[in-house]
Amino acid sequence: MTTTSSRRLYFAGIHDRTPSWRSVFAEKAPEITVVSPEEAAADPASIRYCLAWRPRPGELAALPNLQVVFGLGAGVDGILADTTIPAHLPIVRMVEKGLTKGMVEYVLWQVLYHHRRVWELEEAQAHGIWLDHSYPAPWDRTVGIMGLGEIGAAAAEQLAAFKFKLRGWSRSRKSLSNVACFAGAGELPAFLKGCDILVCLLPLTAETRGLLNADLFAHLPRGAALINAGRGAQLNEADFLAALQDGQIGSATLDVFQTEPLPKDHPFWQQKRLFVTPHNASMTEADAAVLAIRQQILDFEAGQPLRHLVDRQAGY
Amino acid sequence: MTTTSSRRLYFAGIHDRTPSWRSVFAEKAPEITVVSPEEAAADPASIRYCLAWRPRPGELAALPNLQVVFGLGAGVDGILADTTIPAHLPIVRMVEKGLTKGMVEYVLWQVLYHHRRVWELEEAQAHGIWLDHSYPAPWDRTVGIMGLGEIGAAAAEQLAAFKFKLRGWSRSRKSLSNVACFAGAGELPAFLKGCDILVCLLPLTAETRGLLNADLFAHLPRGAALINAGRGAQLNEADFLAALQDGQIGSATLDVFQTEPLPKDHPFWQQKRLFVTPHNASMTEADAAVLAIRQQILDFEAGQPLRHLVDRQAGY
Ligand SMILES: NC(=O)c1ccc[n+]([C@@H]2O[C@H](COP(=O)([O-])OP(=O)(O)OC[C@H]3O[C@@H](n4cnc5c(N)ncnc54)[C@H](OP(=O)(O)O)[C@@H]3O)[C@@H](O)[C@H]2O)c1
Ligand SMILES: NC(=O)c1ccc[n+]([C@@H]2O[C@H](COP(=O)([O-])OP(=O)(O)OC[C@H]3O[C@@H](n4cnc5c(N)ncnc54)[C@H](OP(=O)(O)O)[C@@H]3O)[C@@H](O)[C@H]2O)c1
Repeated sequence: MTTTSSRRLYFAGIHDRTPSWRSVFAEKAPEITVVSPEEAAADPASIRYCLAWRPRPGELAALPNLQVVFGLGAGVDGILADTTIPAHLPIVRMVEKGLTKGMVEYVLWQVLYHHRRVWELEEAQAHGIWLDHSYPAPWDRTVGIMGLGEIGAAAAEQLAAFKFKLRGWSRSRKSLSNVACFAGAGELPAFLKGCDILVCLLPLTAETRGLLNADLFAHLPRGAALINAGRGAQLNEADFLAALQDGQIGSATLDVFQTEPLPKDHPFWQQKRLFVTPHNASMTEADAAVLAIRQQILDFEAGQPLRHLVDRQAGY
Repeated sequence: MTTTSSRRLYFAGIHDRTPSWRSVFAEKAPEITVVSPEEAAADPASIRYCLAWRPRPGELAALPNLQVVFGLGAGVDGILADTTIPAHLPIVRMVEKGLTKGMVEYVLWQVLYHHRRVWELEEAQAHGIWLDHSYPAPWDRTVGIMGLGEIGAAAAEQLAAFKFKLRGWSRSRKSLSNVACFAGAGELPAFLKGCDILVCLLPLTAETRGLLNADLFAHLPRGAALINAGRGAQLNEADFLAALQDGQIGSATLDVFQTEPLPKDHPFWQQKRLFVTPHNASMTEADAAVLAIRQQILDFEAGQPLRHLVDRQAGY
């Protein structure tokens, strides 16, 4: 039983990725010792930190001296799904510039996909047809963003640079330049009414689960586009398929799904005007993530408050 | 023969679009009288201004009192193709924020298309395959821009906001933040060597005709992506097809072609990893264009110099 360092960090629910992360920790954060599942099982009391994505229920509760749980992603629904995690344990979510940049890139790319109706160009190309193809100016197109946090606010800023008309929706009211801001469930219908392209960047919580449903779609202008890069469980898949087939939703992009990997026989794969990406809108950059975790651990040990803490009550 | 206004403006080579432009002029520039081909034929001496895209050779030379030719687009190759246009006649090209914005939007959209290798995602989707799909960070991807004028410089600025590595090439040396600048034919090979994604935004001139050929492709890293939104005659189509099939060019987007509309039996339509758009990367916004022309005419008549003049010697 070797306890080479007091800063022992355990990987929960991401064992398949441990080797490469281990080498990044070795290089960027030598003060931190990454512990294998076997080592952790042999000496659970030695573990003080944990990096988690989708931990096995009970896995974290079995570490008696755990002090901080670091999430591997911006969303922590996979961690909070384990209700046995002691209530006092602080959970820190990943906020990292590279991750945010990747999300902004994805949102812009997919907004342009719907703005320029790429499927019409692709179909014309397949038939050798030179299409008389026009599209509105961005200032005549309204993009609505659900979730104005780290990612939503950054996406809004970049979309504004391209001169799209913007509106946003969050729990508490925000004030962002170039964005018409709506807040709370009460203002959701008014927000939706003007959205030509709706982008969901919400965390998965009790309030947002199943939020993208027939009722919500009915408030959108007919033929609106939907981009979901939040979490799969926010989308009612049956309602969505019906809305897409009916034309209430004109086109869509989904990066996240109820079941991931999306099963081979799932109807989503074969829908027209639906673009599927394999939950890779953005990726946490290992180097930057490790540096961020290292800094938080050092600050925490020096008595500073942790940043990007999850509000367990709110669920994000 | 009615000469209601001294500011008579004739449309050359864009007669099919005259009606809608005519109404925009009526609304935004009532001081200017738009003249139909019939009216112009009846009283050619009354015409002082012309708005042109691809005039019929000789059409402009037949207007004895023509004072300024306004181009409808950023590129004036369609106008300069008429060698009978008197040498003293000033030619003004279209510089208009909406046009530039649209080009920047197109460049960013297509850079992301190649950056994220969309064809792999589309193929996986067609087969119901959840792909393990990753892509480099933008700061590990170099985009090279040929032409650092109105459009190229604006595109570089926006790509820099997304953290792509940038290099650019122009005739005279430029100094742009975040862009490694190369100038002149002598530095072209050095410029090309580092370009993962090459974007052509050059005007069509004697020097740039056929520039995108096998010799140039050979200087690129193997598998580089090519985006041509300059002019079709800059691309040697046979060399390009060979490079695409051989893999020296890994993927491409073309908005412009030797022959437009691209003929139905042209091999470009059916190439894998080649995305074809029907010369609609961006569109001159009629309102803004008319306001810009109006302002230039008023300034010109007040003795001010014309802006965005074409250098007939350089060809752009
Ligand atoms: N697809 C991917 O690859 C990927 C990658 C990264 C992140 N994501 C998803 O993106 C989500 C957002 O990340 P983030 O870093 O931007 O999170 P964040 O900073 O916590 O922002 C969350 C935003 O959602 C709003 N919100 C939460 N619950 C709400 C509700 N019930 N009604 C209205 N608004 C609500 C919040 O409102 P307040 O501002 O009022 O708190 C906040 O503006 C993550 O949770 C994750 O699900 C996906
Ligand atoms: N596809 C579309 O829908 C669409 C729409 C708009 C424009 N365009 C094309 O885009 C072109 C560029 O427009 P712009 O407004 O940016 O033009 P611009 O402001 O005149 O810029 C042209 C740039 O190309 C450079 N250049 C010209 N000849 C060159 C040569 N032989 N070698 C190296 N560099 C050379 C110029 O160098 P210097 O700076 O040294 O002069 C300048 O940087 C147009 O001419 C048109 O062909 C296409």
